[in-house]
Amino acid sequence: MNIVQVKSCEDLLLSMRQMIDHLDEVTDKLDIEASKAMLQKMMEGKRIFVMGAGRSGLVAKAFAMRLMHLGFSVYVVGETTTPAVRTSDVVVAISGSGETRSIADLGKIVKDIGSTLITVTSKKESTLGRISDVVVVLPGKTKIDQDAGGCLEKNMRGDYRNLPPLGTSFEITSLIFLDSLIAQLITLTGASEAELKSRHTNIE
Amino acid sequence: MNIVQVKSCEDLLLSMRQMIDHLDEVTDKLDIEASKAMLQKMMEGKRIFVMGAGRSGLVAKAFAMRLMHLGFSVYVVGETTTPAVRTSDVVVAISGSGETRSIADLGKIVKDIGSTLITVTSKKESTLGRISDVVVVLPGKTKIDQDAGGCLEKNMRGDYRNLPPLGTSFEITSLIFLDSLIAQLITLTGASEAELKSRHTNIE
Amino acid sequence: MNIVQVKSCEDLLLSMRQMIDHLDEVTDKLDIEASKAMLQKMMEGKRIFVMGAGRSGLVAKAFAMRLMHLGFSVYVVGETTTPAVRTSDVVVAISGSGETRSIADLGKIVKDIGSTLITVTSKKESTLGRISDVVVVLPGKTKIDQDAGGCLEKNMRGDYRNLPPLGTSFEITSLIFLDSLIAQLITLTGASEAELKSRHTNIE
Amino acid sequence: MNIVQVKSCEDLLLSMRQMIDHLDEVTDKLDIEASKAMLQKMMEGKRIFVMGAGRSGLVAKAFAMRLMHLGFSVYVVGETTTPAVRTSDVVVAISGSGETRSIADLGKIVKDIGSTLITVTSKKESTLGRISDVVVVLPGKTKIDQDAGGCLEKNMRGDYRNLPPLGTSFEITSLIFLDSLIAQLITLTGASEAELKSRHTNIE
Repeated sequence: MNIVQVKSCEDLLLSMRQMIDHLDEVTDKLDIEASKAMLQKMMEGKRIFVMGAGRSGLVAKAFAMRLMHLGFSVYVVGETTTPAVRTSDVVVAISGSGETRSIADLGKIVKDIGSTLITVTSKKESTLGRISDVVVVLPGKTKIDQDAGGCLEKNMRGDYRNLPPLGTSFEITSLIFLDSLIAQLITLTGASEAELKSRHTNIE
Repeated sequence: MNIVQVKSCEDLLLSMRQMIDHLDEVTDKLDIEASKAMLQKMMEGKRIFVMGAGRSGLVAKAFAMRLMHLGFSVYVVGETTTPAVRTSDVVVAISGSGETRSIADLGKIVKDIGSTLITVTSKKESTLGRISDVVVVLPGKTKIDQDAGGCLEKNMRGDYRNLPPLGTSFEITSLIFLDSLIAQLITLTGASEAELKSRHTNIE
Repeated sequence: MNIVQVKSCEDLLLSMRQMIDHLDEVTDKLDIEASKAMLQKMMEGKRIFVMGAGRSGLVAKAFAMRLMHLGFSVYVVGETTTPAVRTSDVVVAISGSGETRSIADLGKIVKDIGSTLITVTSKKESTLGRISDVVVVLPGKTKIDQDAGGCLEKNMRGDYRNLPPLGTSFEITSLIFLDSLIAQLITLTGASEAELKSRHTNIE
Repeated sequence: MNIVQVKSCEDLLLSMRQMIDHLDEVTDKLDIEASKAMLQKMMEGKRIFVMGAGRSGLVAKAFAMRLMHLGFSVYVVGETTTPAVRTSDVVVAISGSGETRSIADLGKIVKDIGSTLITVTSKKESTLGRISDVVVVLPGKTKIDQDAGGCLEKNMRGDYRNLPPLGTSFEITSLIFLDSLIAQLITLTGASEAELKSRHTNIE
């Protein structure tokens, strides 16, 4: 790679502003009923499992960390000691296309077991969207036909055709949505920030 | 945890809007010179290493995936086959407080080796901020005194006093900044989206 | 779980001795030609990729760490910045049954790409065994019919029917075999222990 | 790396036989009282946490997977949703030298919290050995003075001076010991293999 002299940051700023515009639009159009249903199911579930592939998997982990901090029994699918899913559990799938192969396959098993499946996706009409108990749609520009393969398979083939267009990123949208769900869960579970701090300080 | 009936999503929406406002402010005040210096150092580096703890570590991984897609030789510190850092390499540290113990310790080693250290943080006046060759400051509300311990140590003690106040999250800010850096890098390396697609399609 | 008073360690010692007996048998019957072919292919490959699911995935990572220490360009399939596999690369699959779904699927893609596939397994007559360029068979008691599902799928269902009988463990056998391959590679690449130490000390 | 013609596998076989001899010796000299104390503490603990760095960390994960299969509440320190350690919990540290910095630091915190600390190591007289409630010594050739640094630090510096001499590997010894502990735990918890299978089949 030849070394270029960096003279401007126009695209950097442009991209940040486009993302903010996109987030604004997503917030305006947010499906309140689906969000409430997701919160309700999460609070009713005995344990919460999260799953996602690639960068969506990282978002799932970031969400799981916060849920753990709030006191939920939460597991990341694929980590070393994640137990078997039971009927009373809730599984949250993060998939922009709703078609990521490994996650869609696991989603079918979740429904086969009889657990609750929640999907956060850009595509309501997708494999995961169709089988889920709750679907929260966060609009994006993910092309469904390009995203149907397995995440590891695409990586192994060097198939990175899904680099996001400037200004949209399902991972950013979903991370902001899920972090804001955490804010709502703090209110719902009666844990003010002050209470959270004092509660945890007592443990030490 | 008692089951509550979810009647509203006010805090969810409030939190999303506060985050957008915060992102707007961060973008307005973005340090262009530091961003350009970061881009320059990254393009001059032989290989790029990224590191972060907890949720910042997930952001570092999300950034690394995109860099790999762009064709950079990139490694995540702590993964199985990450090689030793050499003088000609560039290390990018992600740390809201700039004080996360394990990352600050590794940062000192990076400077000891003589490699280039770039830190993305909320605190210029921090351990990592002071020793880095380039510091990109993304303002936040992280309280430096609460964040000084090791990430695993705090987790082991159940010390989660740093749950973000509504509307600010260093992880979200840094993810948006870093994804936008990718947009700029695509321009700088001459890789249009169309070219990226065609280049990768040839591999199959 | 009720607390039992631990009075003896008979099964602990019995299991250790059975494993040693099993390792003795595996060593006596080791397929030297296949081992030599594996070493040859690994040394001819431009880069080495390793993969495995569950505990075999941990063995694959332990092997990859040593290969990295020896100076090989080595990657673990599924880690953050693992690049796309190319024709000139060698992929090592670790799978007791040779049927682990995700690994077998990836094995097919490896052959589709035209790269070299090496499988370390207990079952020569298995999906992975049949498509691989080199198969090293380490005898065990893995039941092929029980191990055909996906690793994550079985975990999600709580299907742990494959707990090893006392005294046999494919993971242990393969870890010892692969660590011994490292010993052979040190000789082949001319890296004596003393040289390795001095070479690396120079880097500091 | 020049391509060498692989003509023999002498060192491969030699290394396997040396490992078996070493395992034989370790089994003969196994500290039965310490092993029983470890089993007792593990069964009395409310939850079990495992930790280790580098290859010992992989062994810790392999152990944790089996414990999870047996029905224990088990967590790997450092994974996404691992909760805070409490007084009633048991923490198992795997460290050949007993001096691995990050693990020794966490060990001190475990004792500070008041939880039970068990260390599996080659060195009784080590930082971890001295502070642990139970120490199981598996003899090896690890040189304590070479292994004192942090695992990530040594990796970052390219300091691989601890490649095992032929025929000894703390990771292999500890994996065999821990897998055999599982065999003993199956007996102690009354879970015959047949029962394990039927119990789990019911979940499906």
